[in-house]
Amino acid sequence: MSEFAIGIDIGGTNTKFGIVDKNGVILAQDRTLTNEHDNVQEFIEDLYLKLTPLIAKAGGADNCIGIGIGAPNGNYYTGNIEHAANLKWKGIIPLASMVSEKFGIKVKVTNDANAAAVGEMMYGCAKGMKHFITITLGTGVGSGIVIDGKIVLGHDGFAGELGHVVVRPGGRLHKGTGVRGPLEAYASATGVRETAIEILTENPQTESLLRDYSLNDITSQTVYECAVKGDKIAGQIFDFTGQILGEALANFIMFSSPEAIILFGGLTKAGDLIMNPTRDAMEKNLIQVFKNKVKLMFSELKEADAAILGASALVWD
Amino acid sequence: MSEFAIGIDIGGTNTKFGIVDKNGVILAQDRTLTNEHDNVQEFIEDLYLKLTPLIAKAGGADNCIGIGIGAPNGNYYTGNIEHAANLKWKGIIPLASMVSEKFGIKVKVTNDANAAAVGEMMYGCAKGMKHFITITLGTGVGSGIVIDGKIVLGHDGFAGELGHVVVRPGGRLHKGTGVRGPLEAYASATGVRETAIEILTENPQTESLLRDYSLNDITSQTVYECAVKGDKIAGQIFDFTGQILGEALANFIMFSSPEAIILFGGLTKAGDLIMNPTRDAMEKNLIQVFKNKVKLMFSELKEADAAILGASALVWD
Repeated sequence: MSEFAIGIDIGGTNTKFGIVDKNGVILAQDRTLTNEHDNVQEFIEDLYLKLTPLIAKAGGADNCIGIGIGAPNGNYYTGNIEHAANLKWKGIIPLASMVSEKFGIKVKVTNDANAAAVGEMMYGCAKGMKHFITITLGTGVGSGIVIDGKIVLGHDGFAGELGHVVVRPGGRLHKGTGVRGPLEAYASATGVRETAIEILTENPQTESLLRDYSLNDITSQTVYECAVKGDKIAGQIFDFTGQILGEALANFIMFSSPEAIILFGGLTKAGDLIMNPTRDAMEKNLIQVFKNKVKLMFSELKEADAAILGASALVWD
Repeated sequence: MSEFAIGIDIGGTNTKFGIVDKNGVILAQDRTLTNEHDNVQEFIEDLYLKLTPLIAKAGGADNCIGIGIGAPNGNYYTGNIEHAANLKWKGIIPLASMVSEKFGIKVKVTNDANAAAVGEMMYGCAKGMKHFITITLGTGVGSGIVIDGKIVLGHDGFAGELGHVVVRPGGRLHKGTGVRGPLEAYASATGVRETAIEILTENPQTESLLRDYSLNDITSQTVYECAVKGDKIAGQIFDFTGQILGEALANFIMFSSPEAIILFGGLTKAGDLIMNPTRDAMEKNLIQVFKNKVKLMFSELKEADAAILGASALVWD
């Protein structure tokens, strides 16, 4: 049997995991709901139950060279998850050592979005690039920053929390962090839903297909479906989201001058509806030296694949 | 005679230059006004006239190993100044080749703020640090970002334009760039003056020592002097400036997670008046993992020295 690695991508909603061979082929994969587990022990137990048959089928733990995990606020240096705003598990969680003990396999941890960036660099549209930023637009907003071909970790391993950058000072409250106006409060699935509720409530007279739903039932998916049907309000919601995202991206560009910014995650399914206003706002806020230079694109990898591949790549070298 | 380097720091107002030995001792220095020269040829002519006697005294051009220049929008890769908002010389200026031709000496160019960061890393309070950011609060706002012990240049050499990061979307117009709400429009000497005029005009009834001056005569220095005397409005002006600066620094921290942020330049003379509101706003906008971790400090080097030393260091290796 040949060697394999395990890649695990822990997201705010779903945790995806897979068995990956040396060539970056995902041999088997599965998923579980992250937040159905009130404590991390139960979560690891569930992972163990689901992964054990996959490991056996791939040749057993002896052929597994390690488990790589991408997790919100995952720290490469310590192996911990520390104060993750989007997870139920609070405080500092020694994830690497807990998982390693349970499986009897070496474990490395990093930020979930960093893992996705590594996946993109090795197998996606950032192949061959030395300077790029990936932004995950999912339940929350994550980011992986690559400079000179290396993930930016910062002095303590926590760099690249671009979802928490404040884009509207004094703006929308982020319930997880208590900070007002961060990117994540606007450019995530949750943010789109909140924008929809705000616009619908503030303009009670304006007609919209979204009014066929109760406010509780509106999701970013509902907004997308209505926008595709030509609904004005739904279009406005994506315009607003794109504008804020584009302004934020311009700021990131003026920081590290990347060759490309690669967008991942659920919101990118909206295609041009989100891409066009984002690109417009981005270009508008850039100073001359950066204008019309930076490639803004959607990832071509399946989101789950990029994250699993990137996480697994942590243990190959 | 022993070898020496020349360091030149081109700022929006002043250009400072010096003869520097291998140990980082500035053997001689002088300055000229940048913006009194309508075109760059005259400027280089002036530099040549002022530097020639200093070079002769230091041992002649044969002992000079090179000229390092820090300039706004200076590009390490190309040797050009490209579209610098704070200079009269517009477009793309092939500074390295022009200066090299005039002096007959090898020339390297980088961003002025990057040069200051190198000076700080080699001779200042960032000695031994691998991750830090320097912010120059002068006529404009410049920045140098160090990650893993290296200046961040980005894919095209223009990274680190943190003065142009938008901190108040739709806010104050930056006349040089046409963008609204960038940090430089608030946290520079020019920005402080503009804030003073705004607050004085918007609150015509409120007493202030600043009313002893005509609006045209108010500078960041006037505001500082009034604040030191306990003037409320002047204090408010620094609070406002510090709040915006602190919010911006929090965003930078969430990007690269530095060990320290080092503040340089004219505005830092205001000491606690600017430091306290900046630190408060910075900490308030950080998510948990970054709180009470990042050292915020004033440079201990004289501003001119750091920039000249940093620029000269470009040619030593």
